[in-house]
Amino acid sequence: MKIVAVHVTPIAISDPPLLNASGVHEPFALRSIIEVETDNGLVGLGETYGDKPVLEGLLRVKDLLVGLSPFDLNGLWQRVLSVGKPVAHGVELDVAPGSQASSAERKIFGAFEVALLDVQARSLNVPVYELLGGAVRRQIPFSAYLFFKFSSDVDSSYRPDAWGETLNAEQLVAQARTMIDRYGFGSIKLKAGALDPDHEVECLKALKRAFPNHPLRIDPNANWSLETAVRMAQRLQGDLEYYEDPTPGLEGMAELHKATGLPLATNMVVTDMDEFRRNVTLNGVQIVLSDHHYWGGLRATQTLAAMCDTFGLGLSMHSNSHLGISLMAMSHLAAAVPNLTYACDTHYPWQDDEVIKGGKIAIKDGCVTVTDAPGLGIELDRDALAALHDQYLHCGITNRDDVSQMRKFRPDWTRKKPRF
Amino acid sequence: MKIVAVHVTPIAISDPPLLNASGVHEPFALRSIIEVETDNGLVGLGETYGDKPVLEGLLRVKDLLVGLSPFDLNGLWQRVLSVGKPVAHGVELDVAPGSQASSAERKIFGAFEVALLDVQARSLNVPVYELLGGAVRRQIPFSAYLFFKFSSDVDSSYRPDAWGETLNAEQLVAQARTMIDRYGFGSIKLKAGALDPDHEVECLKALKRAFPNHPLRIDPNANWSLETAVRMAQRLQGDLEYYEDPTPGLEGMAELHKATGLPLATNMVVTDMDEFRRNVTLNGVQIVLSDHHYWGGLRATQTLAAMCDTFGLGLSMHSNSHLGISLMAMSHLAAAVPNLTYACDTHYPWQDDEVIKGGKIAIKDGCVTVTDAPGLGIELDRDALAALHDQYLHCGITNRDDVSQMRKFRPDWTRKKPRF
Ligand SMILES: [Mg+2]
Ligand SMILES: [Mg+2]
Repeated sequence: MKIVAVHVTPIAISDPPLLNASGVHEPFALRSIIEVETDNGLVGLGETYGDKPVLEGLLRVKDLLVGLSPFDLNGLWQRVLSVGKPVAHGVELDVAPGSQASSAERKIFGAFEVALLDVQARSLNVPVYELLGGAVRRQIPFSAYLFFKFSSDVDSSYRPDAWGETLNAEQLVAQARTMIDRYGFGSIKLKAGALDPDHEVECLKALKRAFPNHPLRIDPNANWSLETAVRMAQRLQGDLEYYEDPTPGLEGMAELHKATGLPLATNMVVTDMDEFRRNVTLNGVQIVLSDHHYWGGLRATQTLAAMCDTFGLGLSMHSNSHLGISLMAMSHLAAAVPNLTYACDTHYPWQDDEVIKGGKIAIKDGCVTVTDAPGLGIELDRDALAALHDQYLHCGITNRDDVSQMRKFRPDWTRKKPRF
Repeated sequence: MKIVAVHVTPIAISDPPLLNASGVHEPFALRSIIEVETDNGLVGLGETYGDKPVLEGLLRVKDLLVGLSPFDLNGLWQRVLSVGKPVAHGVELDVAPGSQASSAERKIFGAFEVALLDVQARSLNVPVYELLGGAVRRQIPFSAYLFFKFSSDVDSSYRPDAWGETLNAEQLVAQARTMIDRYGFGSIKLKAGALDPDHEVECLKALKRAFPNHPLRIDPNANWSLETAVRMAQRLQGDLEYYEDPTPGLEGMAELHKATGLPLATNMVVTDMDEFRRNVTLNGVQIVLSDHHYWGGLRATQTLAAMCDTFGLGLSMHSNSHLGISLMAMSHLAAAVPNLTYACDTHYPWQDDEVIKGGKIAIKDGCVTVTDAPGLGIELDRDALAALHDQYLHCGITNRDDVSQMRKFRPDWTRKKPRF
């Protein structure tokens, strides 16, 4: 089996005005859809960031894969490395790994790796989780991912959404209730770092009162100073399943952990093996949020999982705005990783668009179910792909920039971090 | 694809009187040969220790695998764990992982895992290295593994061999020359810890003079006290590629490294992930000798390789007496692991028996070549298997015991370690 063609299609998907540490989501989020065709008529699918550094890397690598065996992941690495490092394009956001040039090689590798694993599994007529060592679970729990947000009518370029504005505790509890009623989530994550920290903590405490049995997480994306993070920790003691990236830097997290004893989680300070190694020395975080999109694919994330097991770290899963191909890659991975014991993050309920046949994937009782269908178990909807690619061509965004978007509404908004 | 039958056949293979830290090899070494049959008529092969703790574990697990998908390695783990820990049987030797009950679960898992990967690859019509991520090399370098030894006529139960006695420098250089002439090895490993350390170092220096361009290793199997190891290090400075397990314990190795600066290698003090983690703190060893037979199979050894890469450790490969199935499993693994940069160890030239069709696998220019043949690329010779199983039934050995064997020739021989 050899690869005969590779297609990379940038798409734009509509996104609501969700607030975070950097600013606010733009009306469109960018993704790249990958199709790998083999000489036996199979097609493997992948999905990753659509920002320029990653997209350009994908485009430079794709034709080098023709003639390669879909099993030859070492060969894929050699080809990714052969095109050289991508260059930065304007803004790089902490909250948007796709905007960062630095680790783009692992992102490019990982994007193709998923498509190659999909083809491998299809050629075997087995699901991807089977190729990864077999399912230890078939219901993959995700958490309700809550955001502070503007109403969609803040700007005419946002697609109208029924969520409305979420800026206070009452609105946030309503958002949580809708999400839990609709999807059955058993745990809650609050994206913080956007509003005043004391107010955000008040909101989290309102969630705690409304959902006393749902484990809670708060994620200020390193937007709180160490002092603020310590102060909020005192208010949050007993409320949290884990405390995610409250304050910048591995050293800061280490100090915070020492000061508070709270379990700290991250997708910001342990994002590669060098940082993993440093964390072993510093004990800055106790839970790593994996993400195959930037860790270098599903196999590399399994290695990360084994390393977490070895070093006594917990393992959870991070997400950015994404569609169903990513959701199924995340779910197959989670199905095969025994020590992934936390509910995974997903932005999926915030996206209406979809690029796969049958539309949105069901989340029931808070879980995505992996089936016996071959590969990732999904097929591309080519009409939807064409429409979303058209949306990409017309949306005017090529690199995510939540800071500039926020300046449209708050002209004095700055890039300052930590803000609080 | 489902497993329909699993066969585990203990065999005894003739072994010469090779000396080591524990004593001397018995006339027969024990192995277990594994066959995994699937409902589509394929057979996957595995080979591991034949000592009682491992053999009994294999026999207790094997029938639980019927009905399992050969891809379901997580399911294999569950079944291995379900039968409980094996018990110790008499002597446990440092030099013989098969005799140790403690980590038998990983050994049992790894033995079946190789056979399952062989079946996976055969069902795909690809070689095992392809399944492991593709070959970064197809010629796998091995080292000339030299031993001090008795002549085979020391006891009538040894099969006559042409190597003769090797107890002094001249005999050792002759052994090396034969091995290098015959197999083209490009590096040399000396099994030490058997004779007086000063004498062994003299012999190594004779090798250095005879083969000035061959990297040299010496492996006393922790049979030298820290003081002796430091003293020998002073004599060996500049002669060694690495210094393998000279002295016992991770702490002892750490002191030795601090005192000498020599790169230390091990297959004794980093043999599982807990010890790996301790070594990160202590820096006892700088090179880990992997061995899929006790690390838990090929995938687990790939994880070990990634961890070595992360923590800046070198990676080499350990061997015990083995036949061609193990040799090909080692070779396919080595083909797919980019950072396995040292020549691997193998006892293979010391074994005349073979259990695969076509007889002994060729070692040319010091290398085993992996081909495009499906799976491990080898087939079982059932007549040879039957004969070697018969040899097992009649040899009277069920657990390796080099100490008792040595007492036949040196009645005052003790278990004392370190001996020097
Ligand atoms: Mg986060
Ligand atoms: Mg050794």
